Amino acid sequence: MKTHFETEIYAQPDVLRALVENKAAKVTDIVAQIKAHDPSFVMIAARGTSDNAATYGKYLFSAFNQTPVALAAPSLYTLYQQPPNAGKGLVVGISQSGETPDVMAVLKTAKQQGAPLITITNIPGSPMDTICDNTILLDAGVEKSVPASKTYTAQMAAIAMLSVYWNGDKAMLGELNRLGDLVAEVLEQHETIKQIAQRFTETEYMVVVGRGFTHCATYEIALKIKESTYVVAQAFSAADFRHGPIAILDPGFPVIAVAPKGKSIGDMREMVSQIQERDADLVLISNDDELCKQVDSVIRLPAHLPEWLAPIVATVPGQLLALELALAKGIDVDSPRGLHKVTYTL
Amino acid sequence: MKTHFETEIYAQPDVLRALVENKAAKVTDIVAQIKAHDPSFVMIAARGTSDNAATYGKYLFSAFNQTPVALAAPSLYTLYQQPPNAGKGLVVGISQSGETPDVMAVLKTAKQQGAPLITITNIPGSPMDTICDNTILLDAGVEKSVPASKTYTAQMAAIAMLSVYWNGDKAMLGELNRLGDLVAEVLEQHETIKQIAQRFTETEYMVVVGRGFTHCATYEIALKIKESTYVVAQAFSAADFRHGPIAILDPGFPVIAVAPKGKSIGDMREMVSQIQERDADLVLISNDDELCKQVDSVIRLPAHLPEWLAPIVATVPGQLLALELALAKGIDVDSPRGLHKVTYTL
Repeated sequence: MKTHFETEIYAQPDVLRALVENKAAKVTDIVAQIKAHDPSFVMIAARGTSDNAATYGKYLFSAFNQTPVALAAPSLYTLYQQPPNAGKGLVVGISQSGETPDVMAVLKTAKQQGAPLITITNIPGSPMDTICDNTILLDAGVEKSVPASKTYTAQMAAIAMLSVYWNGDKAMLGELNRLGDLVAEVLEQHETIKQIAQRFTETEYMVVVGRGFTHCATYEIALKIKESTYVVAQAFSAADFRHGPIAILDPGFPVIAVAPKGKSIGDMREMVSQIQERDADLVLISNDDELCKQVDSVIRLPAHLPEWLAPIVATVPGQLLALELALAKGIDVDSPRGLHKVTYTL
Repeated sequence: MKTHFETEIYAQPDVLRALVENKAAKVTDIVAQIKAHDPSFVMIAARGTSDNAATYGKYLFSAFNQTPVALAAPSLYTLYQQPPNAGKGLVVGISQSGETPDVMAVLKTAKQQGAPLITITNIPGSPMDTICDNTILLDAGVEKSVPASKTYTAQMAAIAMLSVYWNGDKAMLGELNRLGDLVAEVLEQHETIKQIAQRFTETEYMVVVGRGFTHCATYEIALKIKESTYVVAQAFSAADFRHGPIAILDPGFPVIAVAPKGKSIGDMREMVSQIQERDADLVLISNDDELCKQVDSVIRLPAHLPEWLAPIVATVPGQLLALELALAKGIDVDSPRGLHKVTYTL
């Protein structure tokens, strides 16, 4: 019998296709309000997996909407009760359950401060849906596995929709409409990933490295591996990794490099060479032919993958790797030890 | 012979005392300009160790100056050349050397966008000093060790000065004037830390956990350990750790908990219990008597330590632990393998 985690990973192409199609009118409406408010900045509040979706938003709203993005520090709203004034900004809350209390605290405060709010959640009628006039409901269906998959990529797609409808770029909109197909294509790498996972059943730690837009994908892959397999997986930007933490690499150290084609590929080629110089055990997630030739262990990304969508698509091989590694280690991946589905931090 | 790293760790009380005293006039002048500009947000650009100082700024400017903080994504300025518009904000660049090219790129763009700039650096006449009318020079003396110590805590102190002079809180200013003495007090824990380090000479990974203001201290301690000892040290907020990554803990897993007294202590007490339930090998950095009784392995923080200064003071035991662990492992801590002092990312 398939695990919930696997079933939900495979649901992603359909969830994404439906979201991009069915929420176009809603997002158009929300974007009209954003433009009327002309925010000086965007503040995004999220926890755990959703925090990686927030990082995706940081890159997209900065690059394509020229708007600086602050990631909220929820403890300032709860523990310290000394929140910043977000009145001149737009505030976005992201939560699968729509009830993470400290994310809710950010929204509540921002509303009092006069900021327009957007909620991205999978649960209609949840507190975060209720407090907010503008909710993008993910309609991803119930997510039963504790490690999130389909709600995460749907959160990212909702952010991508906001960014694209906000900047009005027709070419990007066309690319967004292909997102479900791109994810379906990367699922075809499942057997390759299963083979790779067998190599790491005794692994206790791992590094995941990327650059630029894929920053959030590296963090999400590392989180999925930690949650599902108990391997100490740690994510880095190549820019930071090579100037300090790279000291930890010794021969055979497992490293996953996320390197989609695009403006970051030159830097990632250099990073891969630096990793190979140290004889690390490298797995490459890429669609760059030159780089793929240089590495033995490759998970192929779709050839025609726009760099700005790569963070969504490149996360999926990481989900499959976490799944297969958990199965190989005999872990109940749907309910890892000591974890619960909803985050109740205060 | 003492290593440069140790000498520079011990220089910190004097460096901090001098900074707080000698830069008061300069910071007063800068703050007058900030107030005239009335920024909607602060954007901070930094890399590596300095990035942890930026996180400290995120908490301070948010909590004490009610101003949201965005941490710049330098690749948007260099690789992608699609930067956000920071014209309505205040932009702060932090770099020991004052020449980190991608941090420099953020400042250059922000200047064109009309944002006021502040540079925090140790090197007068460096590019970041030159581009900017408002530089806080750290005057920390040459830092010879590759792992930074005195320039890092001085960067944090400069941020603390900006925040306090900006909000004009006299009590906090009085506390800031005691910073050098507080750091001197925590250096007295050196022998205790040396004993603790002996226990971890065979350790390959480690978790560092904190909450709220100490977020940056946990990240800096983990970074220092990675750079100096090649141990895979990973930092977490307690809020995130307990809802996913805690799955990696098994009996004997080394964990450092940073838990100064203050508004976050309740949450950290709960976190410590959760860590102890898993029989992890816990080292506690704290001044909370109740919590200290509950743990065998304790590094004492000063009894009268204001929570907002704890991120600076609590970093110092982490520096000493990195130092002693490196010495115990026979590593040349002044020049770890494959590292260079200045970060030249583009």
